[in-house]
Amino acid sequence: MKVGVPKEILDQEYRVALTPAGVHALVGNGHEVFIETNAGVGSGIPDSQFVEAGAKIQETAKDIFNTSELILKVKQPLPEECKMLKPNQILFTFIHLAADKELAEYLCESKATCIAYETIEDEEGRLPLLIPMSEIAGRMSVQIGTHFLEKYKGGRGVLLGGVPGVEPAKVVIIGGGSVGLNAAKMALGLNARVTILDKNLKRLRELDDYFHGRLETLYSTQ
Amino acid sequence: MKVGVPKEILDQEYRVALTPAGVHALVGNGHEVFIETNAGVGSGIPDSQFVEAGAKIQETAKDIFNTSELILKVKQPLPEECKMLKPNQILFTFIHLAADKELAEYLCESKATCIAYETIEDEEGRLPLLIPMSEIAGRMSVQIGTHFLEKYKGGRGVLLGGVPGVEPAKVVIIGGGSVGLNAAKMALGLNARVTILDKNLKRLRELDDYFHGRLETLYSTQ
Amino acid sequence: MKVGVPKEILDQEYRVALTPAGVHALVGNGHEVFIETNAGVGSGIPDSQFVEAGAKIQETAKDIFNTSELILKVKQPLPEECKMLKPNQILFTFIHLAADKELAEYLCESKATCIAYETIEDEEGRLPLLIPMSEIAGRMSVQIGTHFLEKYKGGRGVLLGGVPGVEPAKVVIIGGGSVGLNAAKMALGLNARVTILDKNLKRLRELDDYFHGRLETLYSTQ
Amino acid sequence: MKVGVPKEILDQEYRVALTPAGVHALVGNGHEVFIETNAGVGSGIPDSQFVEAGAKIQETAKDIFNTSELILKVKQPLPEECKMLKPNQILFTFIHLAADKELAEYLCESKATCIAYETIEDEEGRLPLLIPMSEIAGRMSVQIGTHFLEKYKGGRGVLLGGVPGVEPAKVVIIGGGSVGLNAAKMALGLNARVTILDKNLKRLRELDDYFHGRLETLYSTQ
Amino acid sequence: MKVGVPKEILDQEYRVALTPAGVHALVGNGHEVFIETNAGVGSGIPDSQFVEAGAKIQETAKDIFNTSELILKVKQPLPEECKMLKPNQILFTFIHLAADKELAEYLCESKATCIAYETIEDEEGRLPLLIPMSEIAGRMSVQIGTHFLEKYKGGRGVLLGGVPGVEPAKVVIIGGGSVGLNAAKMALGLNARVTILDKNLKRLRELDDYFHGRLETLYSTQ
Amino acid sequence: MKVGVPKEILDQEYRVALTPAGVHALVGNGHEVFIETNAGVGSGIPDSQFVEAGAKIQETAKDIFNTSELILKVKQPLPEECKMLKPNQILFTFIHLAADKELAEYLCESKATCIAYETIEDEEGRLPLLIPMSEIAGRMSVQIGTHFLEKYKGGRGVLLGGVPGVEPAKVVIIGGGSVGLNAAKMALGLNARVTILDKNLKRLRELDDYFHGRLETLYSTQ
Repeated sequence: MKVGVPKEILDQEYRVALTPAGVHALVGNGHEVFIETNAGVGSGIPDSQFVEAGAKIQETAKDIFNTSELILKVKQPLPEECKMLKPNQILFTFIHLAADKELAEYLCESKATCIAYETIEDEEGRLPLLIPMSEIAGRMSVQIGTHFLEKYKGGRGVLLGGVPGVEPAKVVIIGGGSVGLNAAKMALGLNARVTILDKNLKRLRELDDYFHGRLETLYSTQ
Repeated sequence: MKVGVPKEILDQEYRVALTPAGVHALVGNGHEVFIETNAGVGSGIPDSQFVEAGAKIQETAKDIFNTSELILKVKQPLPEECKMLKPNQILFTFIHLAADKELAEYLCESKATCIAYETIEDEEGRLPLLIPMSEIAGRMSVQIGTHFLEKYKGGRGVLLGGVPGVEPAKVVIIGGGSVGLNAAKMALGLNARVTILDKNLKRLRELDDYFHGRLETLYSTQ
Repeated sequence: MKVGVPKEILDQEYRVALTPAGVHALVGNGHEVFIETNAGVGSGIPDSQFVEAGAKIQETAKDIFNTSELILKVKQPLPEECKMLKPNQILFTFIHLAADKELAEYLCESKATCIAYETIEDEEGRLPLLIPMSEIAGRMSVQIGTHFLEKYKGGRGVLLGGVPGVEPAKVVIIGGGSVGLNAAKMALGLNARVTILDKNLKRLRELDDYFHGRLETLYSTQ
Repeated sequence: MKVGVPKEILDQEYRVALTPAGVHALVGNGHEVFIETNAGVGSGIPDSQFVEAGAKIQETAKDIFNTSELILKVKQPLPEECKMLKPNQILFTFIHLAADKELAEYLCESKATCIAYETIEDEEGRLPLLIPMSEIAGRMSVQIGTHFLEKYKGGRGVLLGGVPGVEPAKVVIIGGGSVGLNAAKMALGLNARVTILDKNLKRLRELDDYFHGRLETLYSTQ
Repeated sequence: MKVGVPKEILDQEYRVALTPAGVHALVGNGHEVFIETNAGVGSGIPDSQFVEAGAKIQETAKDIFNTSELILKVKQPLPEECKMLKPNQILFTFIHLAADKELAEYLCESKATCIAYETIEDEEGRLPLLIPMSEIAGRMSVQIGTHFLEKYKGGRGVLLGGVPGVEPAKVVIIGGGSVGLNAAKMALGLNARVTILDKNLKRLRELDDYFHGRLETLYSTQ
Repeated sequence: MKVGVPKEILDQEYRVALTPAGVHALVGNGHEVFIETNAGVGSGIPDSQFVEAGAKIQETAKDIFNTSELILKVKQPLPEECKMLKPNQILFTFIHLAADKELAEYLCESKATCIAYETIEDEEGRLPLLIPMSEIAGRMSVQIGTHFLEKYKGGRGVLLGGVPGVEPAKVVIIGGGSVGLNAAKMALGLNARVTILDKNLKRLRELDDYFHGRLETLYSTQ
């Protein structure tokens, strides 16, 4: 199959849908891989690494969309990308249609087959392509929180873990799923006092076990 | 030297001043050791173990006080014991004179040399014979506290560590010395939330280090 | 539905079947909730909190049983409660019929629908309403054990975690289910040496993992 | 003694030299305390709390400098503050003279007695008023570092602790003193791989002990 | 059923297929157990312990094979053992046929029913008789590795955990199953830096959780 | 000063007295450093690294002893080395004279100034050049112990940490100094049950604190 990876064009999006290792695996299984020039630069991957792994570099997104049967992206396509999609082409990326009627219409018009990362389920009904995002989101939430608590950012001048003799901050996490678990790991790592609220007692029990009683679990009521 | 160990007669006192291992060490160094019969029974040590270790058993406290140059006890002597003390005899035990004028007078009259365990200092000015008492006191304080928090003892029905979904108890420890440190170990071991107050910032820093940020240290003000 | 909560009348039972948060949730879903006056006092919940949450207070247990379609209790009903049950009324409480033939007969006569908390299973066949009881039982077993090891309670004068230089106590836990796991958490928290026996090797493996090798797991043979 | 606390006027300085608890302690020992109005606002302490603790509020810095025998500040005095200092008045604050010849001249001219926080030594030759600054600096260094590693701040897009399947960041700390220790605590708390360099092997040994082998200690050579 | 346990005759094999506790359980359930004399000696179990547990001792392997309906062994049978097997007899042991065509032919000729430990699956498709072998293999791999890193064994003279000031060794574990997990536990216990490679991201997540971020998990690519 | 490092000639000794970083530091301070060719090979350091760091390579030990004012070695000199020592030359190495009268006589005859590493004390009376040896000895003692417990080495076939369902080994460490502490770290890291005996109660307290109650400390009696 011809697999194409255009450069992401959404503002502030530096990722690329495929790593050289991914290229290597696909090519090793008999596929052809096309990468738009500089697609990996935002992630620190020069074209040469993709070439070494077996990819072919193409100059423009248009080339990618013209050549490929399967388009791999990170974020939902912008209108100019949607217009390049063709019937029977497969688009595989995060889409998040629910909030974006215009995008839904564009995709329908394209008659391409669009599969959203966020809807892929494993055999236990979990969302394996969302979990890493949740892990990152949970971990970053704490470091972003510490940042905005700093006085010079307009915060309250609170250091999450305090110092000896000074009370640590209290962090309350609403929901004990992947995001909450990862946020709790980081907040406890910085020595904050952490409380997690959830309305699933079984999950609270798992969290209590995971943290060996170091964090407070609280059953959430209305 | 002739060393004598009478049976403790204070109410609720089950300890004995010397273990068989202690007897063994003293005898090995050329001393004679006399133990009052049954002196070790409250601590689960029969006379036979003392004999095996090299001690001689005597029938009464009077025998011990008559024979020995050095009297080893656990608690302060009661009046009937004071009266058996002789000039030049050495009494080595916990005494706690400060709170007991009558005892002070008895001991003065006896003209014995009385050395209180609680006043022995090591080269760094610490009280090595008090530290084990503090360790035990600190550890027991928490288990006694858990007991009186139980509902059927008239307590508030609070379980120190809570269970998943229910808030743990908050334990506040005033003073971060040996007693406080040991109380904190036990309270954290039971998963309570623990705060230690002290007015010595250096000590708070040591406690914060010891517990790796698991407990809250608070500088104590008026 | 009309939901009623009588005050528990079993000796030494201080709990109440519903918290104000539970009242709030039920009322929010369109039910009516009736609470017997002072039902929450043993748990530190005054009538006023139930009223605030949307409940109506009734004077007597008789009122509750007359008004309600669903009766929520904590412990099995005593004979005088059984006699107030009516056909088609639902009783939801711990019952433990197996050991109490008289109670079984009373409940049959009442023609009420009686559902025992201890028989509710989740989709994995576990007993979610029993687990919190097991957690509490396991945790309390250790603090009750420490209490009866104290000398003045007639115990052996053993401190669970010892102190430096003195051997800690050895705690043997028979069965590594919820009760055993929670007992082990507390006993290790107090620094005792803990061994768990179970005849399920997979469970021993989970416990070994959970405690990161801190406790001894032993396969139980006859 | 009359003790005065002017509001800090250095840019970005939100602290105040005395808390209400400090006021309380000084007043309780027979001193008079004067606080410039709004001195505590940057730290979230309204004048009313100082008044409650026994302080008197004064309108201007000039009033404070005129009234007080001892001036307590946080940061070194700016020229306009130096000019208000009087012979025999005592100034107690961070000064950091070494880098600021102009300030040194101003203070000499004032003929006040100036004691710098950063020069106070305890009986072991340590600097107790600097340690809390080091603790805060070390802890903040990591959260500031995490911030500038974020992609949208121009960083390399590295998450300190990684996520499962992705390498964590490597943090190298030069010097294992108070700052380094506190930075290491936070960096390990976020699950980074941490190496500390120091040329004091005894200190490396203490750090290895403190972190129970979780961080790498490396003897620093030229 | 008549159950027989011959002494293992494979070189370097010191184990025995049944412990006295196992004998006790089988006999208690109505079976007869026959043990070849000295079968347990390599594991420190004298015949007398088997007798006490209810077994009968037989002189030779021939006796065991003649008497028993079920033969329990540890390792695959050697040719001389295969020849003693009889039709309808059951052999229960590790077999590992895949690598040994000659053995397969011997067993077919014997017309015995041969069940290999390594093929037994539990209800979740796991191999419960292999897991303990994996646990031991994983744990021993590290201690054998430490041994061959020692200089006098021709190794590189590297101490796994280093000492303060000296870099610890880096251990890379390929595959995060039971063997890998147990190897990681031991390597981390010795303070090495550990990386686990696996191509199952879910498993890496479990390992990251298990070790609370102390080891590096790396997604394995080609 | 001229500093010389001969190749170690004792059997099984692979170390070298100076690393390239040490050479660099000495040369940077104005000294000349001479290394015997191949002196670093046993430690994986080729001559070229010493040269890069500023050393000069000499062909024979004789050259080194002839040129240098200060001789740095690892182990005590053998007779052939003693004979090359000259009056006023300084020898700095491990010597361990107490057990070796012949060596003492050789060194006296040489009239060199011999300073033994093992006698250097820091300001607190500790032996800083022995501590790293103790750390290594303590850590290696455990891995050597695990090795000789293996069945095929004639051991008892005991795995230090056991596996789930099987008792871990019991490790008893006599003396809680640097060696004992490091042995305990490794033994606990492998999940053995560890007891340390010492007759210094203060040290036992430190060890109990260090291991947070995970090991048993026992006061050592005769």
